[in-house]
Amino acid sequence: YGKNTIKFLRLHKEGKKQFVKEVEVCAHLRLTSPQEYLEGNNSLVIPTDTIKNIVLVLAKKNGISSLEQFAIDICNHFMTTFCQVAYVKAYVQEVPWQRLHEDGVPHIHSFICVPDGIRFCEAEQCRNGPLIVFAGIKDLKLMKTTQSGFEGFYKNEHTTLPERHDRILCGEFFCKWSYGECKDFDFNCIWKKIRECILEAFAGPPDCGEYSPSYQKTVNCIQMLVLSRVPQVQVIEVVLNNTFYNVVDMKNLGLTNDKEVLVPVETPYGSCACTLGRK
Amino acid sequence: YGKNTIKFLRLHKEGKKQFVKEVEVCAHLRLTSPQEYLEGNNSLVIPTDTIKNIVLVLAKKNGISSLEQFAIDICNHFMTTFCQVAYVKAYVQEVPWQRLHEDGVPHIHSFICVPDGIRFCEAEQCRNGPLIVFAGIKDLKLMKTTQSGFEGFYKNEHTTLPERHDRILCGEFFCKWSYGECKDFDFNCIWKKIRECILEAFAGPPDCGEYSPSYQKTVNCIQMLVLSRVPQVQVIEVVLNNTFYNVVDMKNLGLTNDKEVLVPVETPYGSCACTLGRK
Amino acid sequence: YGKNTIKFLRLHKEGKKQFVKEVEVCAHLRLTSPQEYLEGNNSLVIPTDTIKNIVLVLAKKNGISSLEQFAIDICNHFMTTFCQVAYVKAYVQEVPWQRLHEDGVPHIHSFICVPDGIRFCEAEQCRNGPLIVFAGIKDLKLMKTTQSGFEGFYKNEHTTLPERHDRILCGEFFCKWSYGECKDFDFNCIWKKIRECILEAFAGPPDCGEYSPSYQKTVNCIQMLVLSRVPQVQVIEVVLNNTFYNVVDMKNLGLTNDKEVLVPVETPYGSCACTLGRK
Amino acid sequence: YGKNTIKFLRLHKEGKKQFVKEVEVCAHLRLTSPQEYLEGNNSLVIPTDTIKNIVLVLAKKNGISSLEQFAIDICNHFMTTFCQVAYVKAYVQEVPWQRLHEDGVPHIHSFICVPDGIRFCEAEQCRNGPLIVFAGIKDLKLMKTTQSGFEGFYKNEHTTLPERHDRILCGEFFCKWSYGECKDFDFNCIWKKIRECILEAFAGPPDCGEYSPSYQKTVNCIQMLVLSRVPQVQVIEVVLNNTFYNVVDMKNLGLTNDKEVLVPVETPYGSCACTLGRK
Repeated sequence: YGKNTIKFLRLHKEGKKQFVKEVEVCAHLRLTSPQEYLEGNNSLVIPTDTIKNIVLVLAKKNGISSLEQFAIDICNHFMTTFCQVAYVKAYVQEVPWQRLHEDGVPHIHSFICVPDGIRFCEAEQCRNGPLIVFAGIKDLKLMKTTQSGFEGFYKNEHTTLPERHDRILCGEFFCKWSYGECKDFDFNCIWKKIRECILEAFAGPPDCGEYSPSYQKTVNCIQMLVLSRVPQVQVIEVVLNNTFYNVVDMKNLGLTNDKEVLVPVETPYGSCACTLGRK
Repeated sequence: YGKNTIKFLRLHKEGKKQFVKEVEVCAHLRLTSPQEYLEGNNSLVIPTDTIKNIVLVLAKKNGISSLEQFAIDICNHFMTTFCQVAYVKAYVQEVPWQRLHEDGVPHIHSFICVPDGIRFCEAEQCRNGPLIVFAGIKDLKLMKTTQSGFEGFYKNEHTTLPERHDRILCGEFFCKWSYGECKDFDFNCIWKKIRECILEAFAGPPDCGEYSPSYQKTVNCIQMLVLSRVPQVQVIEVVLNNTFYNVVDMKNLGLTNDKEVLVPVETPYGSCACTLGRK
Repeated sequence: YGKNTIKFLRLHKEGKKQFVKEVEVCAHLRLTSPQEYLEGNNSLVIPTDTIKNIVLVLAKKNGISSLEQFAIDICNHFMTTFCQVAYVKAYVQEVPWQRLHEDGVPHIHSFICVPDGIRFCEAEQCRNGPLIVFAGIKDLKLMKTTQSGFEGFYKNEHTTLPERHDRILCGEFFCKWSYGECKDFDFNCIWKKIRECILEAFAGPPDCGEYSPSYQKTVNCIQMLVLSRVPQVQVIEVVLNNTFYNVVDMKNLGLTNDKEVLVPVETPYGSCACTLGRK
Repeated sequence: YGKNTIKFLRLHKEGKKQFVKEVEVCAHLRLTSPQEYLEGNNSLVIPTDTIKNIVLVLAKKNGISSLEQFAIDICNHFMTTFCQVAYVKAYVQEVPWQRLHEDGVPHIHSFICVPDGIRFCEAEQCRNGPLIVFAGIKDLKLMKTTQSGFEGFYKNEHTTLPERHDRILCGEFFCKWSYGECKDFDFNCIWKKIRECILEAFAGPPDCGEYSPSYQKTVNCIQMLVLSRVPQVQVIEVVLNNTFYNVVDMKNLGLTNDKEVLVPVETPYGSCACTLGRK
């Protein structure tokens, strides 16, 4: 297969108000014949340069109403235009430009980059197969300074970790879900709703939070909440790359450190992942 | 000289509400004698490990009311404790944790990382010299999709750039300013005010913006606004690493692209910088 | 599942001569029951901290005769020690320290880091399944300044790429192969041989090279040579992330540029990949 | 001031044998008048695009016999061509392509990237001032597994570091030196000689090494050796960003770890630097 990455900006205006989407698109093709690999016969090969042109032309003609719709447009174009394409996948990722506000007033043409979780999506299709759409958020960093522990785990002669009932829970989340048969979904609205579910399930109620007995259970809570609140989601995968923090031992410096000063532990660096679907 | 970098978390509580600062501190020392370099005599050397302990102890004892105050505390400690220190500089940078909100309600112990410009500061002192404090913001990415041009520049046989009066202005800002004689400044409040000045000078009025004839002039506008609005600032340096975007030529694809689709130009990558002070 | 990353150094001596391996190990476990996700029951969970201890103890006891043997040791340990482990994968990657030489004389205890392709391996096992071993090289950057072209490709209205018969071929290679049933292989020796095959197939004979009609064909040549020369390899995957270079058009600067000055093209960024096995 | 970065490839042939230099050039200009900042008057501004064209034209016309000569060419061009330029600095850095060898035979047109220390240089000139040339190496990672200690340092109540006489010495070096009045130096030959001095002073004799009582002393040894062996060097700056390794305590795992397994310590991360010149 071959794939390539294209980065570009799509502007549009409504009256004097300007809108911007900056995206990175990665298109991934597999051809019906591997003859370019085996024989050096390029006659079916669609050059990277042509793929770039097609993506830019689609952006110009259709705009980018949502990342998902744009990914669907790309898949449709390649499947209907090139009979030598056996499989196409379009990955689209957004640069998180947000409109600037001055004293609460939105600016008509100025933006600030706010990378508090990056939105992405994927559409893929095999020839004669269904079009499948995924969406997700990545690089979302969250922290709870309390209401998290890790106890009752398996122990043997290699165990040195003490049990803890009041640790820091901190990590970077990657969440990716698939939509079922794609009807006329409002992808932008659904994405925002799922992001809120993730934050809510991570943090719990604002006034008291909710105790997390492990990273794994928190991952599962996120999945359960999304599946229960958002019927369009069929399967959701959550990966948590966690950062551990150790309370600094200040005894030999003559001080008691009551979980006030903590240092991140670079090694080991842990990750837990789970994929959960509907029955 | 020697320097080192320490990363840690400082938590504190007010009732049940939790507060968090995660910082990276880089302490930089120069000793009165270079004997450890020339002779391998370590008797005056303060090990990295000791510096780390001191920084953590200061964080534990004093907390981090502002980055600037913490940097000042570090300078003071080294100057008053070690007579072999000729110069000390403390750089402090913040991990931009923000309190999570659910439906507008602030969460008591959950946070999200929002890196829309990183706050940092520096305090430095030579023995018998004044304590000087700098503060700044870096990695602040801003974009204006119109009201920017570049015309009337110097031309010769190597010039290929066309004049443009409606281009994209986009870049990453680094701003660093110095405070005069440090009295009891409210560093947190001043920093927020300066950030607002930068955004305002970059973007102009929300309903119409303000035309930028060059990156350089925009840099100067930011400096002028900060100096005029914030009397505590003595000198301000602004560096703009700009990203160029080219409107994609779609003529040979049979389309007219009216500044709708643009691609970033990786090379050349430009930067302009200026330092401006009061008379 | 859960995984984690541990970085460490393993030293050993033979007489006064010192040897060093610095590796990054990523162990990946799946348990027989997902109860820690669903119920928050941690009783079967092996903490990251314990996994780290086990990896370090194995390094201490067994040494690292080859990355592959160390990965096998890790798999064996987890499978035989923990009956709750359903699947284990160990990824091991090397920091490329090479012994320093002074005027051709090897130094007994000094090393330099030479990252001209990073060696890695993977061993994986399901309970009651066979132990499978992969090895590979990544971040290997190669360039041919001639004997490469791209012609005869598919054309339509979106094609703008000209045919070229004398371009630069440049890219970063990722190669990963699997060994069949693991007997007493000399993994270090085989790895070196495969690396030589990759370089040879990429470059062709030293005095004249070999024409590459496409990135894809070069990928295939590498695979064919490895499979023909190294009987232990069962399947080989090659990914080439290529960098395009454009000859700078200097006509409007009054100069003829005969493929002397070229600039890298950042977008589109292409990649081609192929997996090839034995019949 | 303004600066910009340009990356390109320069090829040349001698018979059928091909040679390649890939460089990143950063040109840095300061104009005699700041009117473009203060007044938005662009009439003296040399656009980034023009600077890029000039650098590429110089590469085409002059070739790149050495990085230093190319940086000198750039400075000369700007100073003699543009009377509005008050100061110019050209930084040139090399992508470390090395000719491939097959069984010891050099390949006529194939190369491999071997980043074991990156060569760079800088030339700078103020109008009416001398042309000053610097050269250097960066990202050079070296390790000694023994013959290094740190003892007899300053101690107080914040000291927790034990004295050590057999630790690992490991770090990344940045070395930058200035040449005096530039005559017809063979910059390529001198650079290689200095690189050898750095390695030799770091490692000591191949059969026994030389004891390092501190990072600082090793930095000084490198400087002393370069100044004594290479008369063209006037001043040399060395920065060592060191990585600390701790011997893993395996007592509570029932094992004795005799400096066999060590883990890198991410925090604190230390750095020591020194600049040394001739009397």
